[in-house]
Amino acid sequence: MHEKYMAEAIIEANKAAQLGEVPIGAVIVKDDKIISRAHNLRETSQNPITHAEVLAIASASEALNSFRLEDCTLYVTLEPCVMCSGAIVMARIPTVVYGAKDPKGGTVDSLMGLLDEPKFNHRANVISGILETECSTMLKDFFKSLRAKKKEKKNEL
Amino acid sequence: MHEKYMAEAIIEANKAAQLGEVPIGAVIVKDDKIISRAHNLRETSQNPITHAEVLAIASASEALNSFRLEDCTLYVTLEPCVMCSGAIVMARIPTVVYGAKDPKGGTVDSLMGLLDEPKFNHRANVISGILETECSTMLKDFFKSLRAKKKEKKNEL
Repeated sequence: MHEKYMAEAIIEANKAAQLGEVPIGAVIVKDDKIISRAHNLRETSQNPITHAEVLAIASASEALNSFRLEDCTLYVTLEPCVMCSGAIVMARIPTVVYGAKDPKGGTVDSLMGLLDEPKFNHRANVISGILETECSTMLKDFFKSLRAKKKEKKNEL
Repeated sequence: MHEKYMAEAIIEANKAAQLGEVPIGAVIVKDDKIISRAHNLRETSQNPITHAEVLAIASASEALNSFRLEDCTLYVTLEPCVMCSGAIVMARIPTVVYGAKDPKGGTVDSLMGLLDEPKFNHRANVISGILETECSTMLKDFFKSLRAKKKEKKNEL
Protein backbone atom coordinates (compact mmCIF):
# COMPACT_ATOMS: atom_id res chain seq x y z
CA MET A 1 0.00 0.00 0.00
CA HIS A 2 2.78 2.44 0.92
CA GLU A 3 4.44 1.76 -2.43
CA LYS A 4 1.25 2.61 -4.29
CA TYR A 5 0.98 6.06 -2.73
CA MET A 6 4.72 6.72 -2.89
CA ALA A 7 4.48 6.03 -6.62
CA GLU A 8 1.89 8.82 -6.76
CA ALA A 9 4.26 11.13 -4.88
CA ILE A 10 6.92 10.24 -7.47
CA ILE A 11 4.52 11.24 -10.25
CA GLU A 12 4.26 14.61 -8.51
CA ALA A 13 8.05 14.84 -8.19
CA ASN A 14 8.36 14.25 -11.94
CA LYS A 15 6.03 17.19 -12.57
CA ALA A 16 8.46 19.34 -10.56
CA ALA A 17 11.41 18.07 -12.60
CA GLN A 18 9.63 19.00 -15.81
CA LEU A 19 9.44 22.57 -14.53
CA GLY A 20 13.15 22.59 -13.72
CA GLU A 21 12.35 22.28 -10.02
CA VAL A 22 14.15 19.93 -7.62
CA PRO A 23 11.99 16.79 -8.02
CA ILE A 24 10.15 16.38 -4.75
CA GLY A 25 6.51 15.32 -4.61
CA ALA A 26 3.93 14.61 -1.94
CA VAL A 27 0.43 13.22 -1.56
CA ILE A 28 -1.86 13.11 1.46
CA VAL A 29 -4.10 10.08 1.92
CA LYS A 30 -7.18 9.68 4.09
CA ASP A 31 -9.43 6.58 4.19
CA ASP A 32 -7.42 5.05 1.37
CA LYS A 33 -8.05 8.03 -0.91
CA ILE A 34 -5.68 10.75 -2.08
CA ILE A 35 -7.10 14.04 -0.80
CA SER A 36 -4.26 16.28 -1.98
CA ARG A 37 -1.16 16.16 -4.15
CA ALA A 38 1.59 18.68 -4.75
CA HIS A 39 5.14 19.16 -5.96
CA ASN A 40 7.95 21.50 -5.14
CA LEU A 41 7.49 24.89 -6.79
CA ARG A 42 10.14 26.98 -5.12
CA GLU A 43 11.87 28.23 -8.27
CA THR A 44 8.70 28.76 -10.28
CA SER A 45 6.96 30.64 -7.48
CA GLN A 46 10.10 32.21 -5.95
CA ASN A 47 8.33 31.60 -2.67
CA PRO A 48 10.32 29.66 -0.05
CA ILE A 49 7.13 28.28 1.48
CA THR A 50 6.17 26.28 -1.61
CA HIS A 51 7.75 22.94 -0.74
CA ALA A 52 5.71 19.90 -1.81
CA GLU A 53 4.68 19.02 1.76
CA VAL A 54 3.49 22.53 2.67
CA LEU A 55 1.44 22.79 -0.52
CA ALA A 56 -0.06 19.34 0.04
CA ILE A 57 -0.93 20.20 3.66
CA ALA A 58 -2.56 23.50 2.65
CA SER A 59 -4.60 21.75 -0.02
CA ALA A 60 -5.63 18.85 2.28
CA SER A 61 -6.78 21.36 4.93
CA GLU A 62 -8.90 23.03 2.32
CA ALA A 63 -10.36 19.68 1.26
CA LEU A 64 -11.22 18.74 4.85
CA ASN A 65 -11.95 22.29 6.00
CA SER A 66 -9.77 21.67 9.02
CA PHE A 67 -6.28 22.62 10.08
CA ARG A 68 -6.00 19.32 11.88
CA LEU A 69 -5.19 16.57 9.40
CA GLU A 70 -6.23 13.73 11.67
CA ASP A 71 -6.28 10.19 10.25
CA CYS A 72 -4.17 11.38 7.34
CA THR A 73 -0.91 9.99 6.00
CA LEU A 74 1.59 12.18 4.21
CA TYR A 75 3.72 10.53 1.55
CA VAL A 76 6.74 12.48 0.39
CA THR A 77 9.65 11.42 -1.81
CA LEU A 78 12.34 13.12 0.32
CA GLU A 79 12.83 13.40 4.07
CA PRO A 80 11.15 16.66 5.19
CA CYS A 81 13.16 19.78 6.03
CA VAL A 82 12.72 21.83 9.20
CA MET A 83 9.89 23.96 7.79
CA CYS A 84 7.97 20.96 6.49
CA SER A 85 8.55 18.96 9.68
CA GLY A 86 7.12 21.94 11.51
CA ALA A 87 4.13 22.09 9.18
CA ILE A 88 3.50 18.38 9.86
CA VAL A 89 3.54 19.09 13.60
CA MET A 90 1.19 22.08 13.17
CA ALA A 91 -1.21 19.95 11.09
CA ARG A 92 -1.01 17.09 13.62
CA ILE A 93 -0.44 14.56 10.84
CA PRO A 94 -0.26 11.16 12.55
CA THR A 95 1.78 9.24 9.95
CA VAL A 96 4.54 10.35 7.59
CA VAL A 97 6.04 8.07 4.96
CA TYR A 98 9.10 9.25 3.07
CA GLY A 99 11.32 7.78 0.37
CA ALA A 100 14.93 8.98 0.42
CA LYS A 101 16.89 10.42 3.33
CA ASP A 102 18.19 13.99 3.06
CA PRO A 103 21.52 13.99 4.89
CA LYS A 104 21.95 17.76 4.34
CA GLY A 105 18.53 19.09 5.30
CA GLY A 106 16.31 16.31 6.63
CA THR A 107 15.04 16.94 10.15
CA VAL A 108 13.12 13.71 10.70
CA ASP A 109 16.07 11.32 10.95
CA SER A 110 19.18 12.93 9.47
CA LEU A 111 19.97 16.21 11.25
CA MET A 112 17.45 15.87 14.08
CA GLY A 113 14.25 14.07 15.00
CA LEU A 114 11.57 16.76 14.93
CA LEU A 115 8.69 14.33 14.43
CA ASP A 116 9.62 12.47 17.60
CA GLU A 117 10.34 15.47 19.78
CA PRO A 118 8.96 15.19 23.32
CA LYS A 119 8.96 19.00 23.65
CA PHE A 120 6.30 19.37 20.94
CA ASN A 121 2.59 18.75 21.44
CA HIS A 122 2.51 16.33 18.49
CA ARG A 123 4.60 13.41 17.35
CA ALA A 124 4.18 11.43 14.13
CA ASN A 125 4.83 7.82 13.25
CA VAL A 126 7.49 7.73 10.57
CA ILE A 127 8.05 5.09 7.92
CA SER A 128 11.08 5.62 5.71
CA GLY A 129 12.79 4.01 2.75
CA ILE A 130 9.66 3.32 0.67
CA LEU A 131 10.74 3.25 -3.02
CA GLU A 132 13.94 4.81 -1.75
CA THR A 133 16.02 3.99 -4.84
CA GLU A 134 13.47 5.55 -7.21
CA CYS A 135 13.17 8.65 -5.03
CA SER A 136 16.92 9.20 -4.66
CA THR A 137 17.83 8.28 -8.25
CA MET A 138 15.39 10.89 -9.48
CA LEU A 139 17.14 13.55 -7.39
CA LYS A 140 20.63 12.39 -8.36
CA ASP A 141 19.70 12.44 -12.06
CA PHE A 142 18.26 15.92 -11.70
CA PHE A 143 21.39 17.35 -10.09
CA LYS A 144 23.62 15.51 -12.55
CA SER A 145 21.78 17.04 -15.49
CA LEU A 146 21.88 20.46 -13.78
CA ARG A 147 25.66 20.20 -13.41
CA ALA A 148 26.00 19.10 -17.05
CA LYS A 149 23.94 22.08 -18.20
CA LYS A 150 26.03 24.46 -16.10
CA LYS A 151 29.24 23.00 -17.55
CA GLU A 152 27.86 23.33 -21.07
CA LYS A 153 27.02 26.98 -20.44
CA LYS A 154 30.48 27.62 -19.06
CA ASN A 155 32.07 26.04 -22.12
CA GLU A 156 29.97 28.23 -24.39
CA LEU A 157 31.38 31.40 -22.83
CA MET B 1 13.66 51.65 15.34
CA HIS B 2 12.83 48.11 16.45
CA GLU B 3 9.98 49.46 18.58
CA LYS B 4 8.51 51.28 15.60
CA TYR B 5 8.24 48.13 13.50
CA MET B 6 7.18 45.94 16.41
CA ALA B 7 4.33 48.40 16.94
CA GLU B 8 3.30 47.68 13.34
CA ALA B 9 3.43 43.93 14.06
CA ILE B 10 1.19 44.59 17.07
CA ILE B 11 -1.29 46.39 14.80
CA GLU B 12 -1.36 43.19 12.71
CA ALA B 13 -1.83 41.07 15.83
CA ASN B 14 -4.83 43.20 16.79
CA LYS B 15 -6.39 42.48 13.40
CA ALA B 16 -6.07 38.76 14.22
CA ALA B 17 -7.73 39.28 17.61
CA GLN B 18 -10.64 41.05 15.95
CA LEU B 19 -11.20 37.90 13.90
CA GLY B 20 -11.13 35.72 17.01
CA GLU B 21 -7.66 34.50 16.08
CA VAL B 22 -4.77 34.18 18.54
CA PRO B 23 -3.27 37.68 18.27
CA ILE B 24 0.07 37.25 16.53
CA GLY B 25 1.30 39.68 13.89
CA ALA B 26 4.38 40.11 11.73
CA VAL B 27 5.94 42.60 9.36
CA ILE B 28 8.98 42.29 7.12
CA VAL B 29 11.20 45.31 6.63
CA LYS B 30 13.78 46.02 3.95
CA ASP B 31 15.71 49.29 3.51
CA ASP B 32 13.68 50.84 6.31
CA LYS B 33 10.39 50.10 4.54
CA ILE B 34 7.69 47.55 5.37
CA ILE B 35 7.46 45.22 2.37
CA SER B 36 4.90 42.83 3.85
CA ARG B 37 2.57 42.50 6.81
CA ALA B 38 0.39 39.65 8.00
CA HIS B 39 -1.47 38.21 10.95
CA ASN B 40 -2.34 34.76 12.15
CA LEU B 41 -5.30 33.34 10.23
CA ARG B 42 -5.31 29.72 11.32
CA GLU B 43 -8.91 29.55 12.53
CA THR B 44 -10.36 31.66 9.75
CA SER B 45 -8.55 29.74 7.01
CA GLN B 46 -8.53 26.35 8.78
CA ASN B 47 -5.09 26.03 7.20
CA PRO B 48 -2.24 25.20 9.61
CA ILE B 49 0.27 26.97 7.38
CA THR B 50 -1.28 30.41 7.87
CA HIS B 51 0.80 31.65 10.79
CA ALA B 52 1.67 35.36 10.64
CA GLU B 53 5.33 34.72 9.82
CA VAL B 54 4.65 32.30 6.96
CA LEU B 55 2.11 34.65 5.39
CA ALA B 56 4.49 37.60 5.75
CA ILE B 57 7.34 35.60 4.19
CA ALA B 58 5.19 34.48 1.25
CA SER B 59 4.05 38.04 0.64
CA ALA B 60 7.58 39.50 0.94
CA SER B 61 8.86 36.91 -1.56
CA GLU B 62 6.18 38.00 -3.97
CA ALA B 63 7.10 41.66 -3.45
CA LEU B 64 10.79 40.98 -4.11
CA ASN B 65 10.22 38.17 -6.61
CA SER B 66 12.75 36.09 -4.74
CA PHE B 67 12.62 33.21 -2.31
CA ARG B 68 15.71 34.60 -0.62
CA LEU B 69 14.76 37.44 1.68
CA GLU B 70 18.24 38.88 1.96
CA ASP B 71 18.71 42.17 3.82
CA CYS B 72 15.27 41.75 5.36
CA THR B 73 14.23 41.86 8.99
CA LEU B 74 11.23 39.94 10.26
CA TYR B 75 9.36 41.46 13.20
CA VAL B 76 6.92 39.18 14.98
CA THR B 77 5.05 39.64 18.23
CA LEU B 78 5.63 36.07 19.49
CA GLU B 79 8.65 33.77 19.38
CA PRO B 80 8.34 31.67 16.20
CA CYS B 81 7.26 28.02 16.31
CA VAL B 82 9.09 25.17 14.56
CA MET B 83 7.32 25.67 11.21
CA CYS B 84 7.94 29.42 11.20
CA SER B 85 11.55 29.02 12.35
CA GLY B 86 11.96 26.61 9.43
CA ALA B 87 10.36 29.09 7.03
CA ILE B 88 12.82 31.75 8.26
CA VAL B 89 15.71 29.36 7.54
CA MET B 90 14.30 28.53 4.08
CA ALA B 91 13.92 32.25 3.29
CA ARG B 92 17.43 32.98 4.61
CA ILE B 93 16.16 35.94 6.64
CA PRO B 94 19.22 37.47 8.29
CA THR B 95 17.54 39.18 11.27
CA VAL B 96 14.53 38.22 13.36
CA VAL B 97 13.08 40.46 16.06
CA TYR B 98 10.40 39.08 18.31
CA GLY B 99 8.38 40.41 21.24
CA ALA B 100 7.26 37.79 23.75
CA LYS B 101 8.77 34.38 24.44
CA ASP B 102 6.61 31.30 23.81
CA PRO B 103 7.63 28.78 26.49
CA LYS B 104 5.30 26.12 25.07
CA GLY B 105 6.05 26.30 21.35
CA GLY B 106 8.89 28.73 20.67
CA THR B 107 11.85 27.17 18.89
CA VAL B 108 14.17 30.15 18.77
CA ASP B 109 15.04 30.36 22.48
CA SER B 110 12.47 28.43 24.52
CA LEU B 111 12.31 24.79 23.38
CA MET B 112 15.33 24.83 21.09
CA GLY B 113 17.53 27.22 19.11
CA LEU B 114 16.63 26.57 15.48
CA LEU B 115 17.83 29.97 14.25
CA ASP B 116 21.30 29.31 15.63
CA GLU B 117 21.64 25.71 14.53
CA PRO B 118 25.06 24.82 13.09
CA LYS B 119 23.53 21.88 11.18
CA PHE B 120 21.45 24.22 9.00
CA ASN B 121 22.79 26.21 6.06
CA HIS B 122 21.42 29.44 7.49
CA ARG B 123 21.47 31.15 10.85
CA ALA B 124 19.72 34.37 11.82
CA ASN B 125 20.56 37.13 14.25
CA VAL B 126 17.86 37.24 16.87
CA ILE B 127 16.74 40.21 18.95
CA SER B 128 14.07 39.46 21.53
CA GLY B 129 11.99 41.28 24.12
CA ILE B 130 11.05 44.30 21.99
CA LEU B 131 7.72 45.65 23.33
CA GLU B 132 7.54 42.37 25.22
CA THR B 133 4.91 43.50 27.72
CA GLU B 134 2.54 44.76 25.01
CA CYS B 135 2.99 41.55 22.99
CA SER B 136 2.44 39.19 25.90
CA THR B 137 -0.38 41.20 27.52
CA MET B 138 -2.29 41.05 24.26
CA LEU B 139 -2.03 37.26 24.24
CA LYS B 140 -2.89 36.91 27.92
CA ASP B 141 -5.95 39.14 27.49
CA PHE B 142 -7.06 37.11 24.50
CA PHE B 143 -6.85 33.78 26.30
CA LYS B 144 -8.47 35.25 29.42
CA SER B 145 -11.45 36.45 27.39
CA LEU B 146 -11.59 33.08 25.60
CA ARG B 147 -11.77 31.26 28.94
CA ALA B 148 -14.45 33.66 30.17
CA LYS B 149 -16.53 33.04 27.05
CA LYS B 150 -16.17 29.27 27.45
CA LYS B 151 -17.23 29.50 31.08
CA GLU B 152 -20.22 31.62 30.11
CA LYS B 153 -21.26 29.07 27.52
CA LYS B 154 -20.88 26.25 30.02
CA ASN B 155 -23.07 28.12 32.53
CA GLU B 156 -25.74 28.62 29.89
CA LEU B 157 -26.09 24.86 29.34
